[in-house]
Amino acid sequence: MKLLRYGAKGKEKPGLLDSEGRLRDLSSVIPDITGETISPKGLARLRKIKPESLPLVRGKPRIGACIANPQKFIAIGLNYSDHAAESGLQVPKEPVVFTKQVSCLSGPFDDVTLPPKSKKSDWEVELGVIIGTRAKNIKKADALKHVAGYCTINDLSEREFQAERSGQWTKGKSYDTFGPVGPWLVTADEVKDPQKLHMWLELNGKRVQNGSTSTMVFGVAHIVAYLSEFFTLMPGDIITTGTPPGVGMGMKPQRFLKPGDVMRLGIEGLGEQGQKVVRDK
Amino acid sequence: MKLLRYGAKGKEKPGLLDSEGRLRDLSSVIPDITGETISPKGLARLRKIKPESLPLVRGKPRIGACIANPQKFIAIGLNYSDHAAESGLQVPKEPVVFTKQVSCLSGPFDDVTLPPKSKKSDWEVELGVIIGTRAKNIKKADALKHVAGYCTINDLSEREFQAERSGQWTKGKSYDTFGPVGPWLVTADEVKDPQKLHMWLELNGKRVQNGSTSTMVFGVAHIVAYLSEFFTLMPGDIITTGTPPGVGMGMKPQRFLKPGDVMRLGIEGLGEQGQKVVRDK
Repeated sequence: MKLLRYGAKGKEKPGLLDSEGRLRDLSSVIPDITGETISPKGLARLRKIKPESLPLVRGKPRIGACIANPQKFIAIGLNYSDHAAESGLQVPKEPVVFTKQVSCLSGPFDDVTLPPKSKKSDWEVELGVIIGTRAKNIKKADALKHVAGYCTINDLSEREFQAERSGQWTKGKSYDTFGPVGPWLVTADEVKDPQKLHMWLELNGKRVQNGSTSTMVFGVAHIVAYLSEFFTLMPGDIITTGTPPGVGMGMKPQRFLKPGDVMRLGIEGLGEQGQKVVRDK
Repeated sequence: MKLLRYGAKGKEKPGLLDSEGRLRDLSSVIPDITGETISPKGLARLRKIKPESLPLVRGKPRIGACIANPQKFIAIGLNYSDHAAESGLQVPKEPVVFTKQVSCLSGPFDDVTLPPKSKKSDWEVELGVIIGTRAKNIKKADALKHVAGYCTINDLSEREFQAERSGQWTKGKSYDTFGPVGPWLVTADEVKDPQKLHMWLELNGKRVQNGSTSTMVFGVAHIVAYLSEFFTLMPGDIITTGTPPGVGMGMKPQRFLKPGDVMRLGIEGLGEQGQKVVRDK
């Protein structure tokens, strides 16, 4: 299934795509796409419904982040060896874990808003993992059972805030709109191998990132099991798993986002995003 | 007012202390102590109620974390110059910001559970700040208006996970039970000066931390305004503001927590906590 949320920000309704890619309204079945409704029990219930029996949504509504109110938005840093190299950093021995504050969650086509003082905002196409069942101290062999689905994420980053202002990356990863998530939560049964997905990002029509999840340093199963040693993953939690090469910080000369820029990005089978860049006053 | 939550974990009810320090049940008035119920409007409503008109709670129920389901649990590192020195680290030029995952929230008297492989778990008594109104890009002069209240926090830390395992502190700050918060949320009107509060922690009856919020490097108003530059603070968000000297990592020889240890800690006017240490299997 491809689950999504549509409607005005903060008032999104749940929906799903039917076999012809048309948007169907799920709000007579579930209140929203949440940790609860994407549990194995919740998904089993949704699978019993014929999409064609649901009301067709007319027009082109705004699409929201594909999961509502996640408890956590965890990110993995330097998880593609080529991206670590372009960042001038070593591939770490263990996953580098940081936090995007959940208040940065944004729709996949919403504007990306630069902080008033930002000079070094940057893009990162990433494979998103959405947790379906509680995971604490689990083994790698069991990890994928805890994954409800996957999605496209743009892990926006303010490099000066991230790296030049007294440490800990969350400062540069969490501004409002710095977390476009979606368009869809694609359930795990529809993703044959999360480590074989093509991914790309275009800035103003020019392809700048072009990679594959096959070159991740630590794969999805490793990451989910690893994180569960340090804190309990809860249904609905989002993990964004790192970016391949081609970010602005790694260009020579460096190229950062400015108002008017347009990003398009996507991951094979998980859908595309598009964002225009504006600046907060 | 002193607001609190009591009852079994996950089933807490809201309550408040009356003028004689007796626990009164608020569940006929509000569903829980949340970002919504501690907004200025929410608190104004509670202030109109005579505590003595509320049902008295009998017995000695478990006390939960004093705020339910916060969106964020943000922490400030190295915010007391003496603690930075004992950690062998410089006082930072700007606040060091890291994240405690909200799944670590715990009641003030619940056991603290060490991770199975933990060798270096440590204590930190800290002043907690609870946000009452949304704050984005606010000025320091306005910051305290966004604070609903204060509380005692033990910012439990696994030093090996925090500092020796590929960077970013959240790994060592977020294990389940590593965030005892409470016993009470003391509303800001009852805290004359958050920068003049005595604070202490005892390990097995011996005082190891003995400090005052007067020696913070960055005070509460500075921190709240500063954070609001990087992400939007939401009602109910918790900020824990750093610890004075006396942690296990700074002792010679170092002394870390082990099963059977007992911590007691408190902050002037904000109440005391007590935790026994056990180990997860």
